[in-house]
Amino acid sequence: MTALPDGGLALSQLDEQLLQSGVKGLPLIAPLRQHMIGIQHWNVLRADTGFPVALLRTSALRHNLDWMRGFCERHGALLAPHGKTTMSPQLFGAQLANGAWGITLASATQVQVAARFGVRRALLANELVAPSDIRALLHLLRDDPGFELIALADSPDGVARLAQAVDAAGLARPLPLLVELGLAGKRAGCRTGEEALAVARAIAAAPGLQLAGIEGYEGLLVSGDRDVDIERVHAFLDAMVALVRQCDAEGLFTGSQIVLSAGGSSYFDLVARRFAAIGAMSRPVLPILRSGCYLTNDHGHYFDLTRELDEREGGGPGLRPALEVWSIVLSRPEPTLAILGMGKRDASYDIGLPRALMRHRPGTAAPETLDTGWRIEKMNDQHAYLRLPEDAASALRVGDLIGCGISHPCTTFDKWAVLLLVDDAYNVEGAVNTFF
Amino acid sequence: MTALPDGGLALSQLDEQLLQSGVKGLPLIAPLRQHMIGIQHWNVLRADTGFPVALLRTSALRHNLDWMRGFCERHGALLAPHGKTTMSPQLFGAQLANGAWGITLASATQVQVAARFGVRRALLANELVAPSDIRALLHLLRDDPGFELIALADSPDGVARLAQAVDAAGLARPLPLLVELGLAGKRAGCRTGEEALAVARAIAAAPGLQLAGIEGYEGLLVSGDRDVDIERVHAFLDAMVALVRQCDAEGLFTGSQIVLSAGGSSYFDLVARRFAAIGAMSRPVLPILRSGCYLTNDHGHYFDLTRELDEREGGGPGLRPALEVWSIVLSRPEPTLAILGMGKRDASYDIGLPRALMRHRPGTAAPETLDTGWRIEKMNDQHAYLRLPEDAASALRVGDLIGCGISHPCTTFDKWAVLLLVDDAYNVEGAVNTFF
Repeated sequence: MTALPDGGLALSQLDEQLLQSGVKGLPLIAPLRQHMIGIQHWNVLRADTGFPVALLRTSALRHNLDWMRGFCERHGALLAPHGKTTMSPQLFGAQLANGAWGITLASATQVQVAARFGVRRALLANELVAPSDIRALLHLLRDDPGFELIALADSPDGVARLAQAVDAAGLARPLPLLVELGLAGKRAGCRTGEEALAVARAIAAAPGLQLAGIEGYEGLLVSGDRDVDIERVHAFLDAMVALVRQCDAEGLFTGSQIVLSAGGSSYFDLVARRFAAIGAMSRPVLPILRSGCYLTNDHGHYFDLTRELDEREGGGPGLRPALEVWSIVLSRPEPTLAILGMGKRDASYDIGLPRALMRHRPGTAAPETLDTGWRIEKMNDQHAYLRLPEDAASALRVGDLIGCGISHPCTTFDKWAVLLLVDDAYNVEGAVNTFF
Repeated sequence: MTALPDGGLALSQLDEQLLQSGVKGLPLIAPLRQHMIGIQHWNVLRADTGFPVALLRTSALRHNLDWMRGFCERHGALLAPHGKTTMSPQLFGAQLANGAWGITLASATQVQVAARFGVRRALLANELVAPSDIRALLHLLRDDPGFELIALADSPDGVARLAQAVDAAGLARPLPLLVELGLAGKRAGCRTGEEALAVARAIAAAPGLQLAGIEGYEGLLVSGDRDVDIERVHAFLDAMVALVRQCDAEGLFTGSQIVLSAGGSSYFDLVARRFAAIGAMSRPVLPILRSGCYLTNDHGHYFDLTRELDEREGGGPGLRPALEVWSIVLSRPEPTLAILGMGKRDASYDIGLPRALMRHRPGTAAPETLDTGWRIEKMNDQHAYLRLPEDAASALRVGDLIGCGISHPCTTFDKWAVLLLVDDAYNVEGAVNTFF
């Protein structure tokens, strides 16, 4: 985990911060400087940490960072990983140190956090509308000439608001915008090429704005029928390419490059291949992928989707799950029911419930891998209900540990202010922070 | 919002803290001391704040604090409101200043947070199992002779672990425990009176432990058939009373009082009435309710449940929803679809999606109340999909504000580090913090 050069001070302040008792996952009875975590010799399997605790396996993080760097090099793509997934400055640093072009963010406050910790190139993959958001980002741009920001627009209304604000702020450089192309029935973005072209023209015509490129998000095309999904992804990417060509033909791009950005965590291979085949334009094209979940992957939704991606890419060692939540058995009220001290405040439940991977009794040799007969069947705010196979009723006691994988990293990261870095023997090596 | 006497220093440190730019809901471009928020003259309807923003209406908070104090006085009950709902030291302070006996918490780290901010009496409504949790709480008890803590146990195994830990720690006073009585198929707690009695006897027999009373949680009895639910609540409360009587008959209680605690946010009237009718015991009984959601109520699940409670109590002005999340329209991609800058990171979605209550165009007179034709139909991590009635397609623009009520306060509070206090005209009066 390398620090960002320019965010060195802010990042070192995180290292120096005094963590108070009462931080989830940490076994503190007195304040501790964060950088001292790595030399406490805590081991999760010895139950040295607090429980529940969120863990990042550094071997998997390193593998995934390497994997993605290789993928982007192979496909000639750039990466601006979606920072909203982790909102962790230390992880942003690791991503940038491993070749990321910039960091994508979902809101102006997220951009502010990234900038504070040294991110120098931010892609706001969202429409910029609220007065306070516009003010905050124009302030960053004015305050720091080396800070680069690109935002989205999908309506003439929105463009007019931005043009007015930029004019009022007297920004010395134009605000670069991407036109968002959307999908019928889905989220933001123009529904047709004609609408998008009108927005592009409005941007190009506004003195303080600059049409920097085209953006879309194909990741919403996840249904029960993957063949249909993939067909729709291809059609959507074709529409993006057609739009960028038309804008280029009209001379609407005036910067030194043209940004073309798509690629969530499910189909970024399709995006990279389509963008690589775009052909010549009036100026160089920057094909920017935005996957947020590649870094930790998961044991559910994204694991499955990236296995499909591996197959399309011809196999090989794919992305590995790096994020686990470990908790302790608080109660064994019925033979096949265990109540864990982990709930909706600790692990994702929006796409799938956590998956019980391992059980471990502190003091014994090694964790035992659980089969699918062990199943989290429900969570309350602070508890999980683990159903055991009938023949395992005697195998689990109060005080035993359960290691869970999660489905959907974004909605697990946002439940933790501090996540612990562990090696493959669950020795705690350090910590990262999140800012949600 | 009155400060806690003993937590004065820590609470005033919250007031003095320098909030950095990048905190959700705050429109900061430079750091601001938190106590300065109240004199910024921000108004939400003028779009002075950041969006999304989580708001607490102080008039509703005050009403609910008064209402609950009156309720407890009328029924002779004590209140240890569940702090896990808000995890807000300032709100704990308001609850204690308005008559609460103590604060209930769900985990040892939550108890540590409460203690740090001056809570002097904590009910840990959970089994105390993890070594780090036991160590942390025994440390608090040893460190501060005036700090009172009661925890739960539901198994001889758990009791043995605690007895051993207390013995090893050489605590000068016994650790008070409540036996948890549970419900078949539900969460923790002994499934039968016999099991519970065995745990009670084990506690009474352990030198460092003290049987302080009996605990149960009837709030899990929420099904589609309320008559059946209520019958089961009555039966459960009867079982709790039978258990406390039996423990008393056996002379297992050795403290000066007997704690009898139940009462979530749905049926606390039934609990209060049953406990009030308990009759004479060997020593005074403390009937402790633990509702966490009374303070803010909501516009969904708990609103409906407390309307039923009002009916049972004979009407009157019931609890009022105090918590709203306001967001801005980022995109109007289709005539009946608006995309809001508010998502699963900002508002509850576990029991029900947010309810669109009001729309407002900054610069116009007053917000307009929305009918049920305006509906949040989906949320992604950072976006909500608002469906508009067909005839309202022209009534909503990019930049308009939507005020939402939420269903389930617990899973909204945990998404915000700072919530803003507003008067009924949405002037910002101050802020409270959360520690999740």
